[in-house]
Amino acid sequence: MRKPAFIAALLACTAAVPLAAPLAAKEGMFTPDQLPLIAEDLRATGLQIAPEALSDLTGFPMGAIVSLGGCSASFVSPEGLVVTNHHCARGSVQYNSTAENNYLVDGFLAPAKSDELPAAPGSRIYVTVAEDDVTARMREGTEALDPTARYDLLEQRNKDIVAECEQDAGYRCLVASFYGGAQYKLIKRLEVRDVRLVYAPADSIGKYGGDIDNWQWPRHTGDFAFYRAYVAPDGSAADYAEENVPYRPEHHLKVSAGGLKEGDFVMAAGYPGSTQRYAMLAEVENTFDWQYPTFVTLLNEWIDTIEAAAPAGSDARVKYESRLAGLNNYEKNLRGQIEGARRVGLVDRRRMREAALAEWIAADGARAPYGTAITQLSALADESAAAARTDFWYNYATNAQLLSAAQRIYRLAQERQKPDAEREPGYQERDMTFFRQGLQALDRRYDASVDQAEWLLFLDKYLAQPEAARVNVLDRQLGISGTPDRAALRNRIEGYYEQTRLDEAEYRESLLEATPEQLEASEDPFIELAVALYDYERSLEAESEARTGRELALRPAYMQAITGWQGSEGKLAYPDANSTLRVTYGTVLGGSPRDGMAYLPFTTLEGLLAKDTGEEPFNAPAKLLQEIRAEDYGRYELESIDSVPVNFLSDLDSTGGNSGSATLNARAELVGLLFDGTFESVNSDWDFDPRTTRTIHVDTRYMLWVMDKVDGADALIAEMDIVE
Amino acid sequence: MRKPAFIAALLACTAAVPLAAPLAAKEGMFTPDQLPLIAEDLRATGLQIAPEALSDLTGFPMGAIVSLGGCSASFVSPEGLVVTNHHCARGSVQYNSTAENNYLVDGFLAPAKSDELPAAPGSRIYVTVAEDDVTARMREGTEALDPTARYDLLEQRNKDIVAECEQDAGYRCLVASFYGGAQYKLIKRLEVRDVRLVYAPADSIGKYGGDIDNWQWPRHTGDFAFYRAYVAPDGSAADYAEENVPYRPEHHLKVSAGGLKEGDFVMAAGYPGSTQRYAMLAEVENTFDWQYPTFVTLLNEWIDTIEAAAPAGSDARVKYESRLAGLNNYEKNLRGQIEGARRVGLVDRRRMREAALAEWIAADGARAPYGTAITQLSALADESAAAARTDFWYNYATNAQLLSAAQRIYRLAQERQKPDAEREPGYQERDMTFFRQGLQALDRRYDASVDQAEWLLFLDKYLAQPEAARVNVLDRQLGISGTPDRAALRNRIEGYYEQTRLDEAEYRESLLEATPEQLEASEDPFIELAVALYDYERSLEAESEARTGRELALRPAYMQAITGWQGSEGKLAYPDANSTLRVTYGTVLGGSPRDGMAYLPFTTLEGLLAKDTGEEPFNAPAKLLQEIRAEDYGRYELESIDSVPVNFLSDLDSTGGNSGSATLNARAELVGLLFDGTFESVNSDWDFDPRTTRTIHVDTRYMLWVMDKVDGADALIAEMDIVE
Repeated sequence: MRKPAFIAALLACTAAVPLAAPLAAKEGMFTPDQLPLIAEDLRATGLQIAPEALSDLTGFPMGAIVSLGGCSASFVSPEGLVVTNHHCARGSVQYNSTAENNYLVDGFLAPAKSDELPAAPGSRIYVTVAEDDVTARMREGTEALDPTARYDLLEQRNKDIVAECEQDAGYRCLVASFYGGAQYKLIKRLEVRDVRLVYAPADSIGKYGGDIDNWQWPRHTGDFAFYRAYVAPDGSAADYAEENVPYRPEHHLKVSAGGLKEGDFVMAAGYPGSTQRYAMLAEVENTFDWQYPTFVTLLNEWIDTIEAAAPAGSDARVKYESRLAGLNNYEKNLRGQIEGARRVGLVDRRRMREAALAEWIAADGARAPYGTAITQLSALADESAAAARTDFWYNYATNAQLLSAAQRIYRLAQERQKPDAEREPGYQERDMTFFRQGLQALDRRYDASVDQAEWLLFLDKYLAQPEAARVNVLDRQLGISGTPDRAALRNRIEGYYEQTRLDEAEYRESLLEATPEQLEASEDPFIELAVALYDYERSLEAESEARTGRELALRPAYMQAITGWQGSEGKLAYPDANSTLRVTYGTVLGGSPRDGMAYLPFTTLEGLLAKDTGEEPFNAPAKLLQEIRAEDYGRYELESIDSVPVNFLSDLDSTGGNSGSATLNARAELVGLLFDGTFESVNSDWDFDPRTTRTIHVDTRYMLWVMDKVDGADALIAEMDIVE
Repeated sequence: MRKPAFIAALLACTAAVPLAAPLAAKEGMFTPDQLPLIAEDLRATGLQIAPEALSDLTGFPMGAIVSLGGCSASFVSPEGLVVTNHHCARGSVQYNSTAENNYLVDGFLAPAKSDELPAAPGSRIYVTVAEDDVTARMREGTEALDPTARYDLLEQRNKDIVAECEQDAGYRCLVASFYGGAQYKLIKRLEVRDVRLVYAPADSIGKYGGDIDNWQWPRHTGDFAFYRAYVAPDGSAADYAEENVPYRPEHHLKVSAGGLKEGDFVMAAGYPGSTQRYAMLAEVENTFDWQYPTFVTLLNEWIDTIEAAAPAGSDARVKYESRLAGLNNYEKNLRGQIEGARRVGLVDRRRMREAALAEWIAADGARAPYGTAITQLSALADESAAAARTDFWYNYATNAQLLSAAQRIYRLAQERQKPDAEREPGYQERDMTFFRQGLQALDRRYDASVDQAEWLLFLDKYLAQPEAARVNVLDRQLGISGTPDRAALRNRIEGYYEQTRLDEAEYRESLLEATPEQLEASEDPFIELAVALYDYERSLEAESEARTGRELALRPAYMQAITGWQGSEGKLAYPDANSTLRVTYGTVLGGSPRDGMAYLPFTTLEGLLAKDTGEEPFNAPAKLLQEIRAEDYGRYELESIDSVPVNFLSDLDSTGGNSGSATLNARAELVGLLFDGTFESVNSDWDFDPRTTRTIHVDTRYMLWVMDKVDGADALIAEMDIVE
């Protein structure tokens, strides 16, 4: 719901609370090509390989790092074995589970390659093969244009560049924007479409602690699982087929059984999703003073509404478990962000940063254009914030699942009137597989009475706003005028669900080929509503695009100012996360999440045993508990804790999307998988607080111990290069 | 609801989880007369005064330690100034508050002695003046008696001894049982009845963190308040009167502004309520396998019932806030106990202890009688457990407030038929002040619809039991037979509340003089029910007394065996807590509450600032926050934390009743007030786990800093002897 904003909190650390635990700060989600620029600090922190090697995307170790689209992963054998988080592969475990063979409960381990199971539909492994700077081609001549034309031209160039690149079959391309549009890169990735599930421990290992431990330390989660990439016998990307063969990556990581100790160098390579380190004061204020608190309130009502409409144990609840988990997760995250912003004094810190930047600009007349751009960008941020507030309740009031489906279907029919290259991203032929899968998937997460209850909640909130904030076309379509008659509205909404056929997958499928005229003639109430709202939504989109067009001219100047100012202070500015490959480095480190308390850097097998109640989510398999009691640590023991380390903390800089990232030691051997941050860290998307930001990893020693002692995954261990 | 059981977990510490933080264990709630026996360890731990001095109850420092009846406190000036916890004095703050002068919100500080306010009715300060061993007089000739006769004789001797002692007007006496009845002591206390409130900070200091932080570390609670003891001009105890004068204690404590640092010696003197360190396996199993889990379930339903019947904001809710807080507190405590018992493996540990004790007994034929007694005591424990289960639901099914009042009134009429000396304790003339106050207080915590909802819940649970577990007389009175007709029962219960007059304080008062015959003729439905249940309740009581009579012969032998066994291993067994004066000692110490986490020993002013959200219970007064921001620590700074310490942790051994205990340094100067334990410690009532048991204190440096910088309590500071 929120628009990613921009830049890095490079302010000197002004910890508000005195520390009892050691302090460190390795802020920075660096692009690989930046790493040679900070080679000295990498070496000083402990890196033993040449920092320059890290900037070669197709060399070692970066060639082993892959994206799953939303999660990160890495190759760990010459036969395409990929390790990632359990929570990143869990959809595939679920997809293959039945009442008789419930792999969520029992775990899954393919005895041989031929037993490996197809991953859930849509699963992909993306292997980056090339990256090119396309800044000049993207930006040339855009400055003089009016905002909408600028937006349109940049979008068209983006699509053209992607289309050219994807001439090469089997590859997926994207143009990524860095530093708010100051830089663009074309990234070309092999799209492995035959992904198979190799091994996933039981939920009671891989999801140990569940929602209760989510974002918490201490942690004891075995959050690892294995996929394998398959390609056609000729090596090209292909859909699932029996004759496909394991993909042979050029590079794979060695896996460490020796692991780390407190204070050791550690780095992670992965695909962080988005951060707002360079958001301007106006954006921060709007987010933390209005948007997040409003949203937290709504989320709580939303969760209550679903729980009431889909009582525990009902069939409907099964369909909404995942949404409920997501909303709860989001609610907890937002609360953490609000709490974190308050704790660090985010708004004040941002105000101070802008003042310091203004001072740097004022110090040199040649920097005046930056000042002008920043003033305009601030005004634009205020405008965008105002628009976001206006649109907030309308967006929810049109947020019923069937209405969204109808809107996508009608939009597709409209876009189809244009040549493919001119269509809106998401509606091009290259998008149709995902588009179709999305509409199909609706059945698995839709229940009419729950959808209706949610929609009524949203409409109720919408109607509670001042009349001036309401949208005529929506009111008219729903028969609302003046003081709303809620009983009449409820009847009307009930009628929508009685009359619609959009809840039938075949019917939805049939509409994918419909023309605009056919849809406009439809009597399905959701399609009627979608058609009626179409022009208004396009006008909102046009306004938004015009604002983005202005931003695309201003934000690069702002980011150049930031980069220049930071450079003048000897700091390397890095771009906000944008789902492209980044490297973060630091050390294994506990922390002081708050006054009077400290986090220790490792958890232990015995700690898991002490936590285990036998009740979900603290119900490790009997075999695992038995092996702990046997104290058979094998080669996986860490002496300082007299046990096998389960999870560990570091001061790395990570965010959503980093899940599954390879955690590497000084020799670039795999020592863990990054899978979470502590609750005190969630605000780091806005402002990296070195005192509280800590990333949580599963230790490869625990992974190997489970594979070795509990799950008997000996063949996989043998397939990997295990090093001490 | 549970009967206190007996003795100390002196097993060697077998921590299940490896430690990252230092381990220590200073288990033991020693009676003052035991301290010379462990003088060596006291000195080794750091005590600088002569250990022997601590056993003189009327000397320094013990002469300064007092009881408030339920809380502990101490004299801190020659003019009867008493310091205790804020939560121990809060009832008096509430009692004196009005809508205009809300001292809970604003705090209270008497500008001069003449402005000091009377404490809440029933407030007492008990100053111990003498302690005598009365074991011989109590136990002589009781062994040969049958159990009921033994019980009766011990009760009669107890009452006779107390009556003799209380011939001395102004004193309150009690016979306390130690080591399960192996030892009896007569304790004589001056009963100061004119108690006045001198100073209490605002709730937003004294109750900072409220229920959320209850039993939690890190903690930032200013849990201190001041009373003053007043007596008649001739020095005798007297009711409140204007001419009364401050009591001049023989001893008072010096107050330290220098305070402690990590690792320093610390001890606390106070009145811990009850522990079950010597409970037998059968008692532990019954409690943790059945009673506590059953009770937690009931408590949650009970809380829900009250919240539904007395919605937030209603008048009824005001009356039930305190009960709700108590039930929530209890629920959290029981959950902590269950969790703690699981974590330490309480049942297994107790089984091992009994096996070790049996081995010690078997090693010497002369110890055989211990073995016989223990076998019988185990069988008795099983019997008691069975009776407790049978009675559990009946006890709740008769737990409506008005029914309890009716039962007390009818019991009083019956007891009045006997000479005072023969009456049941609680129904003698010496008890009448508290008896009357108890009946009066009902109005402040009673609402008919809530009481009815609670009673219906309890009846519902009672009726859900097998029919064999039901009680005929209760069923008959409520018109229940066979399969219960719940609608009919509900109507009948409603009728009780419509027809009764027991909700009128004057009516209740009038019944205090009624004869049994008058009450038996009453048509008040609650009195009718109380009369009908009387014989059944007396039969339960007689059975219980017979069991206690058996226990009184067996438990002393068991405890002698424990003491002997422990002594043979060089350990001094101490008696379970019984609300008599005890001393516990150890050091200022953080801890590792669980794997991957550590508690640091001090919290800081800045930590309070970081925690403060401005919303209750994290809403410190603006003045306090301002003084923190000013970083004006004065003489109260602790250098190692670069701040004023707010609360600190120690490994002292404490339980409920210890609240307000003077925390003393090596020179017996006041350095803090004990006010809570960590959540991981609540199971220590059953088994002291040195790894997790930590006691929480408010630091005198914070108390003095608040008095000095925030509340301007300069006169009080001047009245005390402040030392560095």
